[in-house]
Amino acid sequence: MRVLSGIQPSGSLHLGNYFGMMQKMIAYQRQEELFCFIANYHAQTSLSDGKVLARGTLEAAANFLALGLDPEKSVFWVQSDVPEVQELTWLLSNFTPMGLLERCHSYKDKVAQGIKPNHGLFAYPVLMTADILLYQSETVPVGKDQKQHLEVARDIAIKFNNEYGDIFTIPEPDIDDNVATIPGLDGRKMSKSYGNTIDLFLDDKPLRKQVMRIVTAPIAVEEPKDPDACNVYKIYRLFLNKEEDEALRARYAAGGLGFGEVKQELFEKIRDTFAPYTERRKELLADPDEIRRILAAGAERARAFAWKTLRKVRKKTGLVY
Amino acid sequence: MRVLSGIQPSGSLHLGNYFGMMQKMIAYQRQEELFCFIANYHAQTSLSDGKVLARGTLEAAANFLALGLDPEKSVFWVQSDVPEVQELTWLLSNFTPMGLLERCHSYKDKVAQGIKPNHGLFAYPVLMTADILLYQSETVPVGKDQKQHLEVARDIAIKFNNEYGDIFTIPEPDIDDNVATIPGLDGRKMSKSYGNTIDLFLDDKPLRKQVMRIVTAPIAVEEPKDPDACNVYKIYRLFLNKEEDEALRARYAAGGLGFGEVKQELFEKIRDTFAPYTERRKELLADPDEIRRILAAGAERARAFAWKTLRKVRKKTGLVY
Repeated sequence: MRVLSGIQPSGSLHLGNYFGMMQKMIAYQRQEELFCFIANYHAQTSLSDGKVLARGTLEAAANFLALGLDPEKSVFWVQSDVPEVQELTWLLSNFTPMGLLERCHSYKDKVAQGIKPNHGLFAYPVLMTADILLYQSETVPVGKDQKQHLEVARDIAIKFNNEYGDIFTIPEPDIDDNVATIPGLDGRKMSKSYGNTIDLFLDDKPLRKQVMRIVTAPIAVEEPKDPDACNVYKIYRLFLNKEEDEALRARYAAGGLGFGEVKQELFEKIRDTFAPYTERRKELLADPDEIRRILAAGAERARAFAWKTLRKVRKKTGLVY
Repeated sequence: MRVLSGIQPSGSLHLGNYFGMMQKMIAYQRQEELFCFIANYHAQTSLSDGKVLARGTLEAAANFLALGLDPEKSVFWVQSDVPEVQELTWLLSNFTPMGLLERCHSYKDKVAQGIKPNHGLFAYPVLMTADILLYQSETVPVGKDQKQHLEVARDIAIKFNNEYGDIFTIPEPDIDDNVATIPGLDGRKMSKSYGNTIDLFLDDKPLRKQVMRIVTAPIAVEEPKDPDACNVYKIYRLFLNKEEDEALRARYAAGGLGFGEVKQELFEKIRDTFAPYTERRKELLADPDEIRRILAAGAERARAFAWKTLRKVRKKTGLVY
């Protein structure tokens, strides 16, 4: 099964990204044919600083490679290194009713937030559709916020196929309703926009500082505590197997466990878990040309798949004269 | 001065096209640096039949080459043979306020006519802007209906330059208000949609038939006639120099000139004027590979210019990491 995933070209990642998305993607890689790209075109709808985008692209690549994305096993590239997707975007635009885009929540929400919309933001779902269809993706893991965009992609694919025959695979969403929400420092969903994240790839000092900021209730050390009401536990358990989890819960219930103590343990756990990845990431970023080489090779593979589709589409739509 | 012109990929041309647009373009070629492309992407907003589009593209190329467009002197190519324009379209979309596109008359008019709009139609002016800016065009000859689109192009170019520095030439419109409206068979503006055209490249029989259909007033042969009130004269004069024009006017004023007679003369005039072009067009279309070769060479030249711009834009917007 061919799975397509686009990732933000952002250098910083937090535990919520890791447990919510990246672990799953690495798992896909083992069982399925994973196509994974860094969505730098899409990022441009909200980022005009080219230097920040370029740096973020390299760092995002380093992040994913460090965390185990295998560029031999998966097809891994930067979106704009296969610019052919923009031609397909145009060709699909002629089969995209305006109403379909006007009804998109994510666009309407941004307008409602007072963002003065550019055309790029409006056209975002057509570009996303082109990414999906160009690679004949069968499955696209999407969060709830992207569910409607996948319906747009299906609608466009069906309209296009109706006109020109069986060109595109109709993609299916993979919406994992069981994905646990990863809580942040304050117990709300971990999110950059809440400023409540524990970030990956930090040095020890800033990492410890973040962990120490986890909000806890004012309960004396000697009191028994309810782990399920504790933000430290909710994060800690992500790292524990069943026995370790039970042992920790028992310590909470017994009383005598200080939040400072358990935070220190959590800090060490995070540090030790990610230390090899952080190390690998540093090595990668010290040699950006090696990252570029990996991405160029990925783009070449992606392009070969893209052209299989594009060749048919260009002929059918009359661009080959 | 660099002049850019996009032409419809339509096989059929009429006298209105010739005297209203093509003559002028050929004249540009003598004095200016002419960039001329067959706008097949744009045509797709209203044409989904790929075979018709492909055929129309070849025929449009044959038409222009036959009528004197010199692919050595001018840069002449098919729009989609430089697909890089689609990437620039995306990059510009992020600097195109939605309101700018929503206010475009040509889009609003089509919606008002009851056309169910697709996104391609809405995005049309951004693609047109990309064509203009990619080649650093200084002058764009536009009809009144395209005047607003040129203002859109200027607005986008200015916004983009404000963000990234002096990347794009700000294009100037060349609106020729003196262009005489070429009258059709019924005296209204000659237009395909009115069905009142005299077409180029016809065989004698259908050409004569069209000319004979020119609407005239019921005035007896012997009566003196007002040439300025006569549809035959209004077309005929396009082919006449000053002396010939005066001679014809005198014949109208003198009486004794039958409309059948003057129509026959006009038919012969049109036939003789365009016969060499019609012949050349036939030769070209008999060897489509030669047309393709010419267009491929043109696309290669266009691409070199395009990349001069695109290289800068890709770097500034952060696609080069």
